[in-house]
Amino acid sequence: MVSLGEVLLRFDPENERIHTARSFRVFDGGAEYNVARSLAKVFRRQTAIITALADNALGRLAEDFVFQAGVDTSEIVWRDGGTDTRNGIYFIERGFGLRAPASCFDRANTAVSQLKTGEINWHEIFDQNGTRWFHTGGVFVGLSETTPDVAREAMIEAQKNGAIVSYDLNYRDSLWKNKGGREVANAINRELLPFADVVFGAIDFDARLSQFDAEKFRQAAEKMKGEFPDLKIMASTLREIHSASRHDFSAVCITEGEIFKSKNYKNVEVFDRVGSGDAFASGLIYGLLAEKDFQFAVECGAAHACLAMTAPGDNSAATLAEIENLMQGAGANVKR
Amino acid sequence: MVSLGEVLLRFDPENERIHTARSFRVFDGGAEYNVARSLAKVFRRQTAIITALADNALGRLAEDFVFQAGVDTSEIVWRDGGTDTRNGIYFIERGFGLRAPASCFDRANTAVSQLKTGEINWHEIFDQNGTRWFHTGGVFVGLSETTPDVAREAMIEAQKNGAIVSYDLNYRDSLWKNKGGREVANAINRELLPFADVVFGAIDFDARLSQFDAEKFRQAAEKMKGEFPDLKIMASTLREIHSASRHDFSAVCITEGEIFKSKNYKNVEVFDRVGSGDAFASGLIYGLLAEKDFQFAVECGAAHACLAMTAPGDNSAATLAEIENLMQGAGANVKR
Amino acid sequence: MVSLGEVLLRFDPENERIHTARSFRVFDGGAEYNVARSLAKVFRRQTAIITALADNALGRLAEDFVFQAGVDTSEIVWRDGGTDTRNGIYFIERGFGLRAPASCFDRANTAVSQLKTGEINWHEIFDQNGTRWFHTGGVFVGLSETTPDVAREAMIEAQKNGAIVSYDLNYRDSLWKNKGGREVANAINRELLPFADVVFGAIDFDARLSQFDAEKFRQAAEKMKGEFPDLKIMASTLREIHSASRHDFSAVCITEGEIFKSKNYKNVEVFDRVGSGDAFASGLIYGLLAEKDFQFAVECGAAHACLAMTAPGDNSAATLAEIENLMQGAGANVKR
Amino acid sequence: MVSLGEVLLRFDPENERIHTARSFRVFDGGAEYNVARSLAKVFRRQTAIITALADNALGRLAEDFVFQAGVDTSEIVWRDGGTDTRNGIYFIERGFGLRAPASCFDRANTAVSQLKTGEINWHEIFDQNGTRWFHTGGVFVGLSETTPDVAREAMIEAQKNGAIVSYDLNYRDSLWKNKGGREVANAINRELLPFADVVFGAIDFDARLSQFDAEKFRQAAEKMKGEFPDLKIMASTLREIHSASRHDFSAVCITEGEIFKSKNYKNVEVFDRVGSGDAFASGLIYGLLAEKDFQFAVECGAAHACLAMTAPGDNSAATLAEIENLMQGAGANVKR
Amino acid sequence: MVSLGEVLLRFDPENERIHTARSFRVFDGGAEYNVARSLAKVFRRQTAIITALADNALGRLAEDFVFQAGVDTSEIVWRDGGTDTRNGIYFIERGFGLRAPASCFDRANTAVSQLKTGEINWHEIFDQNGTRWFHTGGVFVGLSETTPDVAREAMIEAQKNGAIVSYDLNYRDSLWKNKGGREVANAINRELLPFADVVFGAIDFDARLSQFDAEKFRQAAEKMKGEFPDLKIMASTLREIHSASRHDFSAVCITEGEIFKSKNYKNVEVFDRVGSGDAFASGLIYGLLAEKDFQFAVECGAAHACLAMTAPGDNSAATLAEIENLMQGAGANVKR
Amino acid sequence: MVSLGEVLLRFDPENERIHTARSFRVFDGGAEYNVARSLAKVFRRQTAIITALADNALGRLAEDFVFQAGVDTSEIVWRDGGTDTRNGIYFIERGFGLRAPASCFDRANTAVSQLKTGEINWHEIFDQNGTRWFHTGGVFVGLSETTPDVAREAMIEAQKNGAIVSYDLNYRDSLWKNKGGREVANAINRELLPFADVVFGAIDFDARLSQFDAEKFRQAAEKMKGEFPDLKIMASTLREIHSASRHDFSAVCITEGEIFKSKNYKNVEVFDRVGSGDAFASGLIYGLLAEKDFQFAVECGAAHACLAMTAPGDNSAATLAEIENLMQGAGANVKR
Repeated sequence: MVSLGEVLLRFDPENERIHTARSFRVFDGGAEYNVARSLAKVFRRQTAIITALADNALGRLAEDFVFQAGVDTSEIVWRDGGTDTRNGIYFIERGFGLRAPASCFDRANTAVSQLKTGEINWHEIFDQNGTRWFHTGGVFVGLSETTPDVAREAMIEAQKNGAIVSYDLNYRDSLWKNKGGREVANAINRELLPFADVVFGAIDFDARLSQFDAEKFRQAAEKMKGEFPDLKIMASTLREIHSASRHDFSAVCITEGEIFKSKNYKNVEVFDRVGSGDAFASGLIYGLLAEKDFQFAVECGAAHACLAMTAPGDNSAATLAEIENLMQGAGANVKR
Repeated sequence: MVSLGEVLLRFDPENERIHTARSFRVFDGGAEYNVARSLAKVFRRQTAIITALADNALGRLAEDFVFQAGVDTSEIVWRDGGTDTRNGIYFIERGFGLRAPASCFDRANTAVSQLKTGEINWHEIFDQNGTRWFHTGGVFVGLSETTPDVAREAMIEAQKNGAIVSYDLNYRDSLWKNKGGREVANAINRELLPFADVVFGAIDFDARLSQFDAEKFRQAAEKMKGEFPDLKIMASTLREIHSASRHDFSAVCITEGEIFKSKNYKNVEVFDRVGSGDAFASGLIYGLLAEKDFQFAVECGAAHACLAMTAPGDNSAATLAEIENLMQGAGANVKR
Repeated sequence: MVSLGEVLLRFDPENERIHTARSFRVFDGGAEYNVARSLAKVFRRQTAIITALADNALGRLAEDFVFQAGVDTSEIVWRDGGTDTRNGIYFIERGFGLRAPASCFDRANTAVSQLKTGEINWHEIFDQNGTRWFHTGGVFVGLSETTPDVAREAMIEAQKNGAIVSYDLNYRDSLWKNKGGREVANAINRELLPFADVVFGAIDFDARLSQFDAEKFRQAAEKMKGEFPDLKIMASTLREIHSASRHDFSAVCITEGEIFKSKNYKNVEVFDRVGSGDAFASGLIYGLLAEKDFQFAVECGAAHACLAMTAPGDNSAATLAEIENLMQGAGANVKR
Repeated sequence: MVSLGEVLLRFDPENERIHTARSFRVFDGGAEYNVARSLAKVFRRQTAIITALADNALGRLAEDFVFQAGVDTSEIVWRDGGTDTRNGIYFIERGFGLRAPASCFDRANTAVSQLKTGEINWHEIFDQNGTRWFHTGGVFVGLSETTPDVAREAMIEAQKNGAIVSYDLNYRDSLWKNKGGREVANAINRELLPFADVVFGAIDFDARLSQFDAEKFRQAAEKMKGEFPDLKIMASTLREIHSASRHDFSAVCITEGEIFKSKNYKNVEVFDRVGSGDAFASGLIYGLLAEKDFQFAVECGAAHACLAMTAPGDNSAATLAEIENLMQGAGANVKR
Repeated sequence: MVSLGEVLLRFDPENERIHTARSFRVFDGGAEYNVARSLAKVFRRQTAIITALADNALGRLAEDFVFQAGVDTSEIVWRDGGTDTRNGIYFIERGFGLRAPASCFDRANTAVSQLKTGEINWHEIFDQNGTRWFHTGGVFVGLSETTPDVAREAMIEAQKNGAIVSYDLNYRDSLWKNKGGREVANAINRELLPFADVVFGAIDFDARLSQFDAEKFRQAAEKMKGEFPDLKIMASTLREIHSASRHDFSAVCITEGEIFKSKNYKNVEVFDRVGSGDAFASGLIYGLLAEKDFQFAVECGAAHACLAMTAPGDNSAATLAEIENLMQGAGANVKR
Repeated sequence: MVSLGEVLLRFDPENERIHTARSFRVFDGGAEYNVARSLAKVFRRQTAIITALADNALGRLAEDFVFQAGVDTSEIVWRDGGTDTRNGIYFIERGFGLRAPASCFDRANTAVSQLKTGEINWHEIFDQNGTRWFHTGGVFVGLSETTPDVAREAMIEAQKNGAIVSYDLNYRDSLWKNKGGREVANAINRELLPFADVVFGAIDFDARLSQFDAEKFRQAAEKMKGEFPDLKIMASTLREIHSASRHDFSAVCITEGEIFKSKNYKNVEVFDRVGSGDAFASGLIYGLLAEKDFQFAVECGAAHACLAMTAPGDNSAATLAEIENLMQGAGANVKR
């Protein structure tokens, strides 16, 4: 399984605020990368990340994290680090109670945003390596003018070689606000969705759990299916945010007109929600790669997302056993 | 805006207990100072602190915090540090769930407690600098025999120059228990309230949110107004403590017989409640200094108090944008 | 008061997961030891721990913790540390929300597991020192083939000298799963219960608070009493685990056919639940040693258990004043 | 005293390496800023920083540090933070023994690099505020195409209003290597030196202490004086690097043909050398602002530089008393 | 062995400066206490501390450290903590290279300074408990007007019961500077030395190692012996401070006219020198209590002092084996 | 390149002592593994570790480190973790000045010690994967009765397939002291050396740098060559330990009668010396794998060893550029 996207360094002030902190924990992050990371670290699948990094101490720190995750680093494109070829970083507070999570992205002129078509040997990746799944999404394509083309190139080659292509809509206002906002983002997504088999997120769908209605979801799905007839699966998290520390969570997917909805997790105590959407995607992809049924896949994604919210960083370090326990309703008792 | 009070160093064992800790985070604190600090750091107003510090490494550490807060340090009176001229410190645990916050104050013989009338050039502060608001309160006047006189001197000069004078009743048992307790504290407060325009807290008023009744509040206010006819505004937080980690919070003020009550925040997840009363005061003062209406002021104070409870230390590092978002009911979703 | 059991070093990754951590806090732990520790540190009773440690840096670290706890170290048996005489350690995550606490015990071939009958001068401990209470339990007897005999030897000598003997059933799957599991554990417990006056835990009793029924508890007690007619007191915690961060908690004991149940603590915010059962035992024992009545003892145990869940580590650093406040329903307001 | 330059956030992995770290301490830094910072924090002079920051959480963090330093923040230009208007950060390891300090600067497209002539009201700064000293240097002018012009504009206005202008040559390879290297840097410096009274560093001078020769220094000075006849003072540190942890240090200045050399500090134990050149500059400027003689000034600069190397971060938190003690040869005994 | 003196909490900013720190490690300290602590923790002797503490969270933290040290706490006098009965604390930086250690003591109105004659049952301590050694010194007697009398009372009772009495001159300027300085301190020491058998430090003796001359030491000793004929042993450290990070160290004692000098430790790398004098005293006392010869005792003291300088805090956690290895010249190779 | 040996978790109390620490950093370590780790992480060669781990949270933590190192984990043998199948851990203090490093190994009954012949598919590793170098040594063979046979099996298969076999004598007293000590260790080494091409360490050779004499080294080499005629290269570090914080370091190797000695590094400031021997081995192996000459190889090993001593943990995170700089005598100046 291969992801195309940015590997970011996440600087986290833990209990403090960014603007008054005096030290930061570092984690790895990045929406598309997180999916590959969880598939490797949690679900023990072979995955690789396609990205570019500037070859300086920060780029090597990013690589150090990718190694730790067990994600294949051999397809990383290394650029000379210099004034205008950077590595992406972001600062994020996880929030607490009434205080919302807050972020400060600093990803201008990153090496990955300078990727161009023709630089990556997609043929080798998909044909020779037998990659079965390809994932990218709206964060990567928002990085620059050139990244949508790189994504398209990859998606086409992936499909040509029989890999499943998933795409996460993932709108980030910080990326788009100066180039046309959500409308332009959607326009670009629309250019790429014809090459996707699976989409995470749905255009014009209210993903609040309290508003969930199977029929409305079906309608949104049918509308997308109408527009992109090759889409096979559409999946979405469903969430209700009571406070930064307490969410309701569920997830849903639809395929061939049939809806599969995970159970509802009410009043989930949230340590750090960032990355839980990616955790859902990885769990669902795992279910399908492992040839489980759709109900398993969506439950697996939802349970993984819930666990991902219980620990610091974008990513969970959950184990498959923990996920399956949660799917089966095991309580939070201690084993010893 | 100018506050008169002690700048304390707060030693905080974070998750641990004071009596078994092996390291402490340090913060700045002090009831009256906290108000000036938030007005500077959060609300971006020019403020100064009138206090005294012993000139040793701890005093300079306190000054380092005041600088960081952006509060004017030029009126700090520096004393030779010595055996009997100390800087005030306190140790505080923030509590968790059923475990209440706990404190150990060590503020005997502090430089600030030795302030005497005639030492501060109030005339310069209020007349020449055009200070618009003066704040002090029951913690400062409880520090020693001489501090009530210093407070009176300042309040009179402030009013004479057209500054608004606010006074926070703020009873601290650790200060008064050896000198007559709440009764003596109230007696001294009563000597000073004639020179106040705004009072935080109300004598003989039950400030539990579950017991709030507009009529009772009005009666308490009228009683105080009867005793201190020049009082223009009386304000109070309203709180229900379910556990150290969960409060209900609201606030109320009355002016010219009209009651303004903030919305109720139920089941607020509390990280550290210490200083939330001061946060309320600063928010309300901001509203009035910025010439917003009373409803805005009380909502602003309440929202700021709620945010102050979501982060470590006496003080919040909230931004005005965050406060206004909370006032407008924005949820705790992440922006990115 | 004297406990027989292992002193373990607990390595705790705090907010992180064990399998991805880069640093660990260390605490002391060990079920039977925890009881002696709380009686010394919290309840200010003279206690001693009977155990063995390998004489290397880790053993001395364990001793350093025992000193800190104020528990008498003079009866610790020191063995030469070597390849096959180790000190017990365990790794534990406290869990959060939907993520259950997780542990990894590493207590093979520990010095304490090699204790044999005849090594400890029980006569001196009970006869000459006037020890009034002896405690051990199912964790210690699960350590090796020899430890049940050591426990029996001690219990007999304790009773002979008029000390009260308490025994905590405390099943640990990690100790028993390779030697017959719960059935064998129960069989060994049954060999020792004839020498106990007080038992913590009950065989074949559902300790979920939501399932509590006084009659069922009485029946379970009567059944045990039938089997072990010398048992005088049977006590149990009652717990409902909503999530790793939220429990309901209560406790109950029965003596001479009379049931004493503590009040119910609902929705207790849990920081770290490990050791709360031992905290209950210590509180109940304190009540009886201090010659309070049974209702006090069970309430004291329950309140102490609740406080123990509010702080890191196996053990609380609560004070008796805090426990009594909680027993009397004092809220979680700050004193200052 | 006013400095023109960048305020950087310094991310420091403490004992670790950048490329394998998992947390970072943050400090403030920036060559020209450091001089203003020390003059404020250490030497207690009124100073201001002229810079620009992007208005996001990182910019506010930089401001938080400037406040803490006691440097006036009122002339900071705030830009909207966005994809291409960043705040400068850098990562630095302090080195140890044979391992040299290492850095990774990330200062592309910073707000300060986008400063243009006409944006800062230099007239107000120098004429109305009575600023007595202006400092800038080769780092600031290396930031972009526009910064040399901003520096020139400021230097001319400063001189016009009678302020002393100092300029630190400070070559940074990371800034210049893609635009012509040291040669181009020198060319730009040469365009600005006509407007400087004091220069730190000397073109074509070997600043190794072991190679120091008063005559050679005089010749280098005369050569510069020949080229820039208005230069009044030329100063340089003299250093011999035995290892990252041990330097010899001295300093020298020349004015009106007279050389003043500080004593030699041999085998100085170095904790963190970064910023020691700036510390020298601040000490020398202090001496001159305080109207001490040149020997005092150069000794003060050297002693401050030595103390700056004993603590973490770019900047010292030394006190004037400590500096004077070191100048007078007081040993490193403890006072208590 | 019993010490009379203050147990202080030491707040240590580690690599930072006190006046800009944001967190502090805590250690226990106090000159006379340190001697009892090392005799217990390092040399495994039974020791007790006679002191007073205010009964609040800080006093209990001090007690927690005393427990950890393995020093008997049963003779601690507990006072009600209040405005004017405090626990002593101090802040200390360990220094680095050219930056000297710096301290800020805050020990006014401590519980221990309020000790009065008649409060401690010295008879029980010395007669019934068979205490063999009593230690106090110039720090304790400098705490207040009453402490010299308490010391005298104890010394007399100790000698009456056959215990050896040692006294450390230990001048602290912070204690004496407002009451007459070193002259008054010496005068009070002179009132107490008649009751001492062993004195650490020598009046009018230059303790710099580079100035050491056996004859001068003999003369100083003879002068003291002339004044205090009952003195049996006079001992002193000998030190040369190259920098805060590098000392030469040695020690010497004289008894019955015979001088015993330890070997010289040259260029000792110093992590934290505070407490090394107390470490010397404890090593020498250990040698004598263990009935080793004088050469052993002074070598043991010197080696322990050197090891104490290699680790943080006032006290070492050295083992006897480590001390003996160093005495025998074992190098610093790793054993594994 | 493939190593056979144990992956240990290293628990490091940083500045503290093990026996009084309250938290530990964790690193990976293990003599033979360290060589593979550096070849991967520092020298960017493809390497794998052959080992066994118990499948529990600690084993997965070890794996997490191996991933981070970029060492291939696919040949790790996973055992069920249980009472008697553990993962190896050790505690180590790095020492400071006169305080030697100290360790406490806890590696009884580890999964790796239970490896047996026939379990690893050496044929696949050497024949199919084209492995060019195999490394193991005296630590691995000291783990149990069965490990020498596993080593022999591997060495024979490696040589059969043309891989170079290196063996590090690496005596560890903690492993051998109960089974015959150095003599038995040497006997087992002698059984394996016939299958080695390269040996690190020399029997009966004084490796102190101050005692180095080319002739003596040649004699020791010839003696070993006489005994093991197939040995092609013999290499050794040369070290002089002035204190835990200061070593002299060099290295030497001999091949075909020709001696290659690195330059001498005098007064190397040592942060943590543990693992520097392994760092030397990795550097030398790198030189040979990269087909540099012998002088390069031994200089590369020595420089890497020196850099490894400048940072925490067993392993360096040096870069090849840093190593080459040091080899070429570049000073420790900062690049920026």
